[in-house]
Amino acid sequence: MKKFINRVDSLLHESLSGFAHCHRDLVVLDSDYRFVRRARAKPGKVALISGGGSGHEPLHAGFVGHGMLDAACPGQVFTSPTPDQMLAAADAVDSGAGVLFIVKNYEGDVMNFSMAAEMVGERGASLITDDDVAVQRSTFSTGRRGVAGTMVVEKILGAAAERGDALADLQTLGVHVNAATRSMGVALTSCTVPAVGRPTFDLGDQEMEMGVGIHGEPGRRRVPLAPADEIAAEIVRAIVDDLGAKAGREVLLLVNGFGGTPLLELYLMYDAASRELAKHGLMVSRSLVGNYVTSLDMAGCSITVTLLDNGITPLWDAPVHTAALRWGM
Amino acid sequence: MKKFINRVDSLLHESLSGFAHCHRDLVVLDSDYRFVRRARAKPGKVALISGGGSGHEPLHAGFVGHGMLDAACPGQVFTSPTPDQMLAAADAVDSGAGVLFIVKNYEGDVMNFSMAAEMVGERGASLITDDDVAVQRSTFSTGRRGVAGTMVVEKILGAAAERGDALADLQTLGVHVNAATRSMGVALTSCTVPAVGRPTFDLGDQEMEMGVGIHGEPGRRRVPLAPADEIAAEIVRAIVDDLGAKAGREVLLLVNGFGGTPLLELYLMYDAASRELAKHGLMVSRSLVGNYVTSLDMAGCSITVTLLDNGITPLWDAPVHTAALRWGM
Repeated sequence: MKKFINRVDSLLHESLSGFAHCHRDLVVLDSDYRFVRRARAKPGKVALISGGGSGHEPLHAGFVGHGMLDAACPGQVFTSPTPDQMLAAADAVDSGAGVLFIVKNYEGDVMNFSMAAEMVGERGASLITDDDVAVQRSTFSTGRRGVAGTMVVEKILGAAAERGDALADLQTLGVHVNAATRSMGVALTSCTVPAVGRPTFDLGDQEMEMGVGIHGEPGRRRVPLAPADEIAAEIVRAIVDDLGAKAGREVLLLVNGFGGTPLLELYLMYDAASRELAKHGLMVSRSLVGNYVTSLDMAGCSITVTLLDNGITPLWDAPVHTAALRWGM
Repeated sequence: MKKFINRVDSLLHESLSGFAHCHRDLVVLDSDYRFVRRARAKPGKVALISGGGSGHEPLHAGFVGHGMLDAACPGQVFTSPTPDQMLAAADAVDSGAGVLFIVKNYEGDVMNFSMAAEMVGERGASLITDDDVAVQRSTFSTGRRGVAGTMVVEKILGAAAERGDALADLQTLGVHVNAATRSMGVALTSCTVPAVGRPTFDLGDQEMEMGVGIHGEPGRRRVPLAPADEIAAEIVRAIVDDLGAKAGREVLLLVNGFGGTPLLELYLMYDAASRELAKHGLMVSRSLVGNYVTSLDMAGCSITVTLLDNGITPLWDAPVHTAALRWGM
């Protein structure tokens, strides 16, 4: 295993310390490492809290700040945070308007966040994301997995919370955005979990895993390495079919790297994916390319498409100021 | 070779097309793929142009925009752009106040940019960056290599050009910033050049290359893999010794990934490097962590330190709006 670490058991805390120090104008790290919260709270708004296993950086801590999350709870690598982390985060950022937990659909996360929601009581609500069209159930999930589309949900809800939307409205909007969003990924290599020390799965020199999960879970099938255009065509077709997207719609296209794939290739995949979407009559009017929802050091990427409408587009465009996403301010 | 590509000979153009389409609010791609320029020119300012071989994305095209570059000329992977690319870029963005070429110190780049400067004549000037302390000469360079510190120079000069500094003043400032900046890198794996199809160098499972160049050039020595703290200590010591930095100074710390290393590890290296700088009495008052000057898919990172002063700091803080770097607007 080749990684920049000191000890496996101190990796997360050291990385969080570095993150918090680097972005000390934006965020504060809880002294017990339970959560990262905004440095400047905005009283009166609903607090948005997300979290999950680490190893997907910049998700979620990189999205804490104006126009997105109020706090993020980092678990150990690929391990859910605990309910007491979520409760501590809720106590730290709830200013009276309530708390919405945004939860990727994995059994551990769903169980722990629902325990936290129960402890929070009436001032809390939860939203589960499950944008991955690849498989109907997986290693850690019943039903579809929540993957890169989660950051789209966090951005849209973040903007809506910032303008003052109430808790119930945010939950409704979140269901709508999640339903308008689909993703699918492909892996060229496995990731390596530090505590394990060897690749999560074996992949031949000429193979790729279509529909891989962000923890290296199996996808739809293992196939020979193909040209970028063919990969993009298969993923876009799977997404568009599942969305039931009609020609003429405007979409947001997110090409997300898994951590080990450089921008040179991600922009090429973006080029291929936008050409494919055009063949389906869909127009890319909003775009994002980069490593946003990663899987440690995995080489690979995912494509996410969100159907835009008059409700979603202005919220995507609204100002955001976080470590990993920033525009309009 | 596992990459998202269609054909080796179309890789660069497809990636540039994707980049330009994704960031069409910011940049325009020349129809012959010779350069990327700002979508909105600002008349009356000195035009800053950089460029070099591709494979280091987001450098340089990702830094085209308000407060940084006016144009970037991408060569093929790890290959200098040609003088006619640079001349075409100069003609496209020079609004009468002259053109400054910012050139990383590699023989091909220096030769081609000096030919371009000659063709541009009196309205042009050049600045060479050579911030890499690892070795005094290398595979493609006489003298030190220009590496991640180049983006610091581009940011500072970009802000100065934006406020209206004259060509000669920008050149003087560039020499000052380059002299205040040092970098050194370390590779955990080789990169793979698409046209070659196999790793540039072989590195054992337990080895790393200290002082590696951004094209995979040899560094100072090949050593056994070490804990992150030891790596950071060695690099910071090399940089601080070379800078002759006195205790009490404020510095900018840039921890730059080479393309295959995820943020989880880069923030940990940032944590380690800031602790090391503190031991030398240097205070990190400005920070940047991410994949900015990459080496294709290489796993590894570099550390860059710039000595701040009253001239440099406000220019670093000044607004910037590019694909890869954005703040203050």
